[in-house]
Amino acid sequence: MALIVQKFGGTSVGDVDRIRTVARRVKQTREQGHDLVVVVSAMAGETNRLLEMARSAAPRPDERESDALVSTGEQVTAALTAIVLQGIGVPAHSFLGHQVRIETDSAHGRARIRRIDGEQIRATLGRGAVAVVAGFQGVDEHGSITTLGRGGSDTSAVALAAALKADVCEIYTDVDGVYTADPRTVPTARKLDRISHDEMLELASLGAKVLQIRSVEFAKRYGVKVHVRSSFNENEGTWVVEEDPSMEEVTVAGVAADLNQAKLTLVRVPDRPGVAAHVFGPVASAGIVVDMIIQNASADGTTDLTFTVPRDDYDKAKGVLERILQEIGGEGVRGDLGVAKVSIVGLGMRTHAGVAARMFEVLAAEGVNVQMISTSEIKISVVIDAKYVELAQRALHEAFIA
Amino acid sequence: MALIVQKFGGTSVGDVDRIRTVARRVKQTREQGHDLVVVVSAMAGETNRLLEMARSAAPRPDERESDALVSTGEQVTAALTAIVLQGIGVPAHSFLGHQVRIETDSAHGRARIRRIDGEQIRATLGRGAVAVVAGFQGVDEHGSITTLGRGGSDTSAVALAAALKADVCEIYTDVDGVYTADPRTVPTARKLDRISHDEMLELASLGAKVLQIRSVEFAKRYGVKVHVRSSFNENEGTWVVEEDPSMEEVTVAGVAADLNQAKLTLVRVPDRPGVAAHVFGPVASAGIVVDMIIQNASADGTTDLTFTVPRDDYDKAKGVLERILQEIGGEGVRGDLGVAKVSIVGLGMRTHAGVAARMFEVLAAEGVNVQMISTSEIKISVVIDAKYVELAQRALHEAFIA
Repeated sequence: MALIVQKFGGTSVGDVDRIRTVARRVKQTREQGHDLVVVVSAMAGETNRLLEMARSAAPRPDERESDALVSTGEQVTAALTAIVLQGIGVPAHSFLGHQVRIETDSAHGRARIRRIDGEQIRATLGRGAVAVVAGFQGVDEHGSITTLGRGGSDTSAVALAAALKADVCEIYTDVDGVYTADPRTVPTARKLDRISHDEMLELASLGAKVLQIRSVEFAKRYGVKVHVRSSFNENEGTWVVEEDPSMEEVTVAGVAADLNQAKLTLVRVPDRPGVAAHVFGPVASAGIVVDMIIQNASADGTTDLTFTVPRDDYDKAKGVLERILQEIGGEGVRGDLGVAKVSIVGLGMRTHAGVAARMFEVLAAEGVNVQMISTSEIKISVVIDAKYVELAQRALHEAFIA
Repeated sequence: MALIVQKFGGTSVGDVDRIRTVARRVKQTREQGHDLVVVVSAMAGETNRLLEMARSAAPRPDERESDALVSTGEQVTAALTAIVLQGIGVPAHSFLGHQVRIETDSAHGRARIRRIDGEQIRATLGRGAVAVVAGFQGVDEHGSITTLGRGGSDTSAVALAAALKADVCEIYTDVDGVYTADPRTVPTARKLDRISHDEMLELASLGAKVLQIRSVEFAKRYGVKVHVRSSFNENEGTWVVEEDPSMEEVTVAGVAADLNQAKLTLVRVPDRPGVAAHVFGPVASAGIVVDMIIQNASADGTTDLTFTVPRDDYDKAKGVLERILQEIGGEGVRGDLGVAKVSIVGLGMRTHAGVAARMFEVLAAEGVNVQMISTSEIKISVVIDAKYVELAQRALHEAFIA
C-alpha cells in the first residue's frame, strides 16, 4: 500500500463530466489499496475569468483581494470533486489551503510555500477517505489567502507529496509526458521514460510548459518522485527522478524553444567599471527579469551591452534604458522582438566535450546565425532570429537525439 | 462618529457596475466620518448556479462540500467590493467567515452562529479601512466552512452589528422598507416608518420576505437597531426597533400572506391519548416542520387531525402519514395543496379586544371561509382557500390599516 498524490490540471477538471472521469481514476487507484491525496486546479478558463473580473473592478486590483477572488476557482473544483467521489461511493473530504494548512509568505500572486501541516490530511487518510486539496492556494501568517502563481497547483502537489512523504506524485496533464522536443514542431520527438530533476529544471526554465519550475525545485530538494502522465489514457508517462549514473550516457535529453523573448542593446555606451551595475540596477528595480547578457569587446572606449527580457516587459525595459542612456551617454537603444531562444539540455554534457561546437556547426549548416550564447553545466542556449525557431529545433533534435 | 454595518443583497451587488454604486454609497457614508463594516451577499443568481452545479455532480451532494462550494459566491463579491472601494480611494479589507471569525455549529446549510470574534475587524477599522465581510458564511469548530441558510447574510450583518456594538445595521434591499402588506397585491399598502422586533418577527415568519427570521431574533436579543432601506435611492426606510409604549396605539401593523402551505388531514383516527404524539413524532423525525395543528372534537371515539406543512414537504409528509395510518387505524389521509395562510400582526392586539372577531367578520363579508385559525399575543393567522389570498389581504388591509 502506497501513499499517492495525484494532481489534475484545469483541462482534466474542465467540467462536471471530466471530473467524473477523474473520480473514476481515483476510485481505481484507491481500489488497488493505496492512500490518495488529490490536488485539483480551477476549471480550465476559470482563473482567467476571475482575473478579468478583478481587472474590470479596478485597473490595478489589490493583490490580496485578487488572491481571495481567484482562489475560489480551485475551491469550487475541490468541493465538486469531493461531491462526485462521494457520489460513486468513495469517501472524500475537501481541503482549502488554510484548512490543510499550507503556509506561505505574503507575496500575493506568487507566494512561496514555507511550511505544510499534514495532520488534518493524515487524519482524513486514516479514516479511509480521499483528501481532495484545492491547488494553487495557501494562507499567510495573517490568515490571508495567497496564490502560488501560474501552474502553482503543480507546486501544491509536489510540496504536499514532500510533506506527507508520499511514494509518488502523479501530475496528470493533457500530454503523455515530457518529450525530447515539442512534438508539434519536431515530428520525431519522443516521450522520455525518465529525466533527472536538473534536466527537468532546465527544460522548464527554457520554455517547456509541462511543470511549474518551482514544483521541480521542490521535487529535487525533497527527493519526490514525480510521474508526469496523461489524464486521458493509462500509459506510463515520464518519471522525473533523482539522477543516476546511467543518465550521463545520454548527451542531450531534450531540445527546448522559447519565443517569449525580446532583445535590447545599449549601443556604444562608455566602457568603464560600474556601467553594468548602473544599467541592471534600475532594470531589476522595475521588476524586469533579465535572462542572457552579453557585452561586446570594445575598441574605442565604448561597448555594446545586449540582453534579453520576457516579451511583455519589452516596452517597460526600453523606457528604463532610454532614461539610463541620458545619464551615462551612448549612441542609442536598439530593440528586437523577432528573436527566439533555442536550447539543448542533458546531463551528458558534463562529460562530453565539444557539444557546444557541434551545436553551432549544426545551426551554421542550416544558415542560422547565432546572436547570443549562454551555457550552464548541463545546457546550451542560443538566441537566434525567430523565423528559424522550428528549423533549429528540428536540426538539433536530428543531430543529437533522433 | 458612529459604527455602521451596511448589508447589500444579491441584487445590489448583481454585477461590477452595481458594486460600483454600492461603493459610492459606502464612500459617502465614510466621508460623513463613520466607521463602516460592509456585508455582501453573492451576486444575484450565483448561489443557485453553484447549487445547481453541486446537484449535477451528485443527486444528494454532501452538505459540508456544498457549503464549501456555495460560499465562494460571497467570497467573490467581498473581494470585488474591496477592489472597487480601493479603486475609488477607499481603503478596504475583505474578510471571509473564518477570517472574522464567525463561529457556528456544524449544521451545514442552516448553521447557527455561536460566537463572533470582532478583533480583526476592529483592527481594520482602527487603521481607517472599511471591513468588507462575506455574508452567509461561517466556520465550525473543525475549521469547515458553513452557511447560514437562505437570507443568511441578513443574520451575518445583524450578528456582526451586535458583536461590534454597532450604532445601526442598515439592510439595503430592492424595496423601500417594510410595508403594511405586499404592495403588488394591496395597492394601498404603505411603508412603515418603524416596527417592533416582535412584529417584524411575526411578519417574517408569516411570509414577508424582507428579512431572515433569525436576523430579527438577533436584533431583538441584542437590541440592534435595524434600518431596512432601498439600495437604489436615499429615502429613509423602515426602522426595526425595540418596542415603545406608543406602538400599542396601532392595532394592526401589517398583513402578511404565505402561499407556501399545504394542508393534511388524518381522517377519523382513534381519539385516545398518545395519538398526537404517535403522529407528530415520526413527522418531526422526517425533518418536516409542522405549522398549525387543529384537532376536531370527536363524537364517536374518532377524531380528524389536521395540520399544515411547507409545500415542498407535502409528498414526504403524506408518505409518513400513510405509514402511521397502518399502525393506528383510521379512514384515510386527505391532502390539500390549494390553501394559503393570511395573517394580521400588531402589538395593539394585546390591549384591543375583539380583533379576531372583526377579522372573521371581514373575511365572511367577502365570502371567504376560514379553515384553520392560529393566534399568538400579537398575531392572528387563518388558513383559507388559496384562490382568495389576494382578496383577503386587501379586505383585511382596508379594514384594519388603510
